[in-house]
Amino acid sequence: MKMSQTMIATLREAPSDAVVASHQLMMRSGMLRKLGNGLFCYLPLGLRSFRKVENIIREEMDAIGAMEFMQPVVVPGEIWRESGRWETMGPGMLKAVNRVNQELVVSPTAEEAFTALIRDELSSYKQLPLVTYQIRTKYRDEIRPRYGVMRGREFTMKDAYSFHATQKSLDKTYEDFAKAYRRIFKRLGLTVIPVRADSGAMGGTGSEEFMVESEIGDDTLILCPNCGYAANTEKASCAPDIATDDSGTPQVLTDKPYEPVATPDVKSIADMEKFFGTTSKRFIKVIVYKVLNSILDLHDAPGCQNLKQIKEGDAEPYYPEFFAAVCIRGDLDINEAKLCSLLKASEVVLADEEDLIRLTGATHGFVGPVNLDTIPVICDNSIITQNQDGSLEARVHDAFTGGRKKDLHLKHIEPLRDFKPYLCADVRTCVAGDKCCNCGSEYYTKKGNELGHIFKLGYKYTKSMNVTYLDENGKPQIPTMGCYGIGVDRALASIIEEHHDDDGIIWPMTVAPYQVVVVPVKYENEMKEVADKIYNDLLANGIEVILDDRNDRPGVKFKDSELIGFPVRIVVGDKNLPNVEYKNRTEEKEVLSVEAATKKAIETVKKELRELNA
Amino acid sequence: MKMSQTMIATLREAPSDAVVASHQLMMRSGMLRKLGNGLFCYLPLGLRSFRKVENIIREEMDAIGAMEFMQPVVVPGEIWRESGRWETMGPGMLKAVNRVNQELVVSPTAEEAFTALIRDELSSYKQLPLVTYQIRTKYRDEIRPRYGVMRGREFTMKDAYSFHATQKSLDKTYEDFAKAYRRIFKRLGLTVIPVRADSGAMGGTGSEEFMVESEIGDDTLILCPNCGYAANTEKASCAPDIATDDSGTPQVLTDKPYEPVATPDVKSIADMEKFFGTTSKRFIKVIVYKVLNSILDLHDAPGCQNLKQIKEGDAEPYYPEFFAAVCIRGDLDINEAKLCSLLKASEVVLADEEDLIRLTGATHGFVGPVNLDTIPVICDNSIITQNQDGSLEARVHDAFTGGRKKDLHLKHIEPLRDFKPYLCADVRTCVAGDKCCNCGSEYYTKKGNELGHIFKLGYKYTKSMNVTYLDENGKPQIPTMGCYGIGVDRALASIIEEHHDDDGIIWPMTVAPYQVVVVPVKYENEMKEVADKIYNDLLANGIEVILDDRNDRPGVKFKDSELIGFPVRIVVGDKNLPNVEYKNRTEEKEVLSVEAATKKAIETVKKELRELNA
Repeated sequence: MKMSQTMIATLREAPSDAVVASHQLMMRSGMLRKLGNGLFCYLPLGLRSFRKVENIIREEMDAIGAMEFMQPVVVPGEIWRESGRWETMGPGMLKAVNRVNQELVVSPTAEEAFTALIRDELSSYKQLPLVTYQIRTKYRDEIRPRYGVMRGREFTMKDAYSFHATQKSLDKTYEDFAKAYRRIFKRLGLTVIPVRADSGAMGGTGSEEFMVESEIGDDTLILCPNCGYAANTEKASCAPDIATDDSGTPQVLTDKPYEPVATPDVKSIADMEKFFGTTSKRFIKVIVYKVLNSILDLHDAPGCQNLKQIKEGDAEPYYPEFFAAVCIRGDLDINEAKLCSLLKASEVVLADEEDLIRLTGATHGFVGPVNLDTIPVICDNSIITQNQDGSLEARVHDAFTGGRKKDLHLKHIEPLRDFKPYLCADVRTCVAGDKCCNCGSEYYTKKGNELGHIFKLGYKYTKSMNVTYLDENGKPQIPTMGCYGIGVDRALASIIEEHHDDDGIIWPMTVAPYQVVVVPVKYENEMKEVADKIYNDLLANGIEVILDDRNDRPGVKFKDSELIGFPVRIVVGDKNLPNVEYKNRTEEKEVLSVEAATKKAIETVKKELRELNA
Repeated sequence: MKMSQTMIATLREAPSDAVVASHQLMMRSGMLRKLGNGLFCYLPLGLRSFRKVENIIREEMDAIGAMEFMQPVVVPGEIWRESGRWETMGPGMLKAVNRVNQELVVSPTAEEAFTALIRDELSSYKQLPLVTYQIRTKYRDEIRPRYGVMRGREFTMKDAYSFHATQKSLDKTYEDFAKAYRRIFKRLGLTVIPVRADSGAMGGTGSEEFMVESEIGDDTLILCPNCGYAANTEKASCAPDIATDDSGTPQVLTDKPYEPVATPDVKSIADMEKFFGTTSKRFIKVIVYKVLNSILDLHDAPGCQNLKQIKEGDAEPYYPEFFAAVCIRGDLDINEAKLCSLLKASEVVLADEEDLIRLTGATHGFVGPVNLDTIPVICDNSIITQNQDGSLEARVHDAFTGGRKKDLHLKHIEPLRDFKPYLCADVRTCVAGDKCCNCGSEYYTKKGNELGHIFKLGYKYTKSMNVTYLDENGKPQIPTMGCYGIGVDRALASIIEEHHDDDGIIWPMTVAPYQVVVVPVKYENEMKEVADKIYNDLLANGIEVILDDRNDRPGVKFKDSELIGFPVRIVVGDKNLPNVEYKNRTEEKEVLSVEAATKKAIETVKKELRELNA
């Protein structure tokens, strides 16, 4: 390709709304233009790299036997009503009504479309497993689109869906994807952190997120430097630690009975530290939550005997609402995602003042677990742990807690002696410095962005949308399901985030728009002849080469070549002829003969491709 | 590929809503499934052929130097307001409003998006011409989607847009596209009829439609068997013919003065034939139209002296409304599209009764041109033609027409003697049997479907959306524009319409999902060994081959292979071993050695590819 024949639209300055490197560089190098808020047009150079990302993903999907489909982008609202997500997807799903009043959705994802397709095609266990995918346009109405295609509204996603007769079959396919994803990211030159993730709104259990480190990341990752443990903060566990007193030594059991202390206006942990003059590690913080749609069995839980369970169809019975008091050490925070998962609930929300007073006698700040029998008490492992043999062990001693009356606290509290938990579990928010739940090393944290996600969905969609097949015995069965996504645009932007310097992009060879740029200082006379020769030799050797035949100052051409980030550059100038200047994007220039430069370019391209694709 | 590893979803019966061959066969062969009304999912086999169509189009676009872009599918309503099409596109354009009340459009086409992009990128004449394209999802809300992807709601279109400093440059690019389109359709194995077309709602002049013959076509084509003239009925011209009298001999001039005839209730042409007892070729039919938004200059037109022109910005001044009487021979019909184009109007509508009486004294049936000076009289060439030297020539003689009074006609009418036209032109609807305007041969007609369309758009979008560049003298200029579309899904369906028989699809080699199918009668023992050997040899020779390793009855496998339509089939059965059965899809079987069959398959594939791609 000659530059005069494509659109080189480099900019000296990035637009002011571009605040991260990838967005700035995609705009400046002329890969991308903005058409509307969160809506982008790929220009020819950008599209080349985009297609390469797509194709690497496609090859790895095909390699694990996934079958490529193409669903419509606009789909009937009807299938979203069937799955129940018409209501639950929220305002991020773009809906439209057409001229004959049919409800339509601009697909944000395609569980429904693939489940509907497979429902019609699947009859026998012999057809299973079925592993499907597509690489397709999606739309999610980001409320505040930013960072270019990193968080746009329209984007391209590789979304895959698998259907299985057995858990074992799902497990195997899930592993195939886990491996394929590692290969994809390696080939794209991306360093990813695979983490166990909360499966969020998608439902089901068993999931892994593939994150890239990013200062603008949506997620906080908890990482162990020793054993490689990695988890999203929403799901990370840590080893229970030993609660210490003011001098840093382990807290000691007291035999004093607990007693009340008048504490006017002492509400917060900071207030308590000041008032009692001691570390917050000796405080038992108690937060009361309203728990929604829990499928726990609460028949023996304090205060829950008269709660009604609701049973609808084949779904597990659930409690629309109950309250629980959660105890945690004063220096720690409750992780509501972990709490939600523990309580098998759709949501937990802080109890309001009225409910607090009715149930515990006090508002937050003065709630305590002692003699609290109106609602279940749940203890984080920082307060009480349950050992493997079932026995319970107190983790704080001689502690302070709320007195369940305004302006009243209790001291000399001994957990297990003064109150008993209904449940003990890990519900704390892990932070840097906590101990690894695998190996005990100290965690560190990073901000990350999700590039891919693999899930074991289970029966969520196949049940709600009535998918069945006949098993070996001719009996109808429901298949179990997995889903697997990668954001194509976000992967492309992440490559640039990871590979750039002050001058521009540094493309990995697999995704560079062109592998080699040939820059004649002026495209005339001998410089033209030599540049053409190198260009044609490289083409003949299967190298993707672009020739800068523009009538521009050499400085502009050099700057553009670094900004766009071609991996190899060969400059043909009068100064060096009959030799030329060879330069890898991040290495020093060297002056070589035309033949040597051509040969080195070919070898460099092939070697880097081989290494990345290995 | 082995069939067990992809989805072979053949059906014995087509669904009842599939009434045309391509829809039936795409469903039965498992290329396609319906997700919603006019919304389809491509299954793996269908997607392979679909991608091949896409790639042939892409290669030919790249070959003429068009640059590939990718615009979003969902675009801001704002740019449609700028071009003025927010209002004029009608209910076929799917609009949505997002959570922050932004108006969005699911793109039905992308003139606006590309014009907006180029507006920002274009600064100098040196950048022109710019030739852009994309292959992208579109949505048009067909009120009655049918015939599968032939007339769906969501579809994929290759849409290209070019921008030019001069008409000459536009003309050249238009010619490039015209040639590229011919090559594309040839490579796809499609017989297309390139026709001059009315450019419809797209605006501009100079356009060509690429049609395929189809009994379910939207369009009627007028075709000349001799010189190859082809036009959409909306634009077709024909040679003026010679009006004959009852005995079939040319009509003869009369010197009798015209005189009134009382004609109670004689309104229609049929009434007149009965009443006067003569051929309708002697009648001058007069229809009065209300003409909207015409940019003709009417300052010297009868009855138009007081009409006001409206002038808005740089646009040509126009008359919001005027009336015209159109005269045509009684056996012919007025073509309103041609009339509209002649009058440079946005629309023509029949005048209502009130206007008719006010302007002519009578309602339709009794309107006539004699002494009509309130509105311009326009004569079709069947009544009066203008010769090249400017002289006028009457084409009917001793004719009948309306008397401009209820129940009154006039006879012995001589055009030019008894009335004069304001304009003479060809505004008749051509039909089979009319004479070719080029060579005089008799036209025949066909129904056709539009596959592609190329237009010279002119300044419509660049003006309304304020695109400018600086010319050689540093003066701002507006570029002129062309646009060029091909429907990918419709092309695919049309290939099947043209290439099938009772047993199934007959794929052209260039677009077959796989070029060769190897069918072991049973996939076991020696049959398996031989089938595997042929399969691997073909793979090694770069042939796209699929192996039917399914555990199905041979009859099912044979029927499927014909239904799906693989161009070459090799059957491996005990009966013939060590020989095998070789069969091209439409030829007789022959028994060949394994080596000969393999060789013949390779040669057949390469030969057909070579011929189609030549």
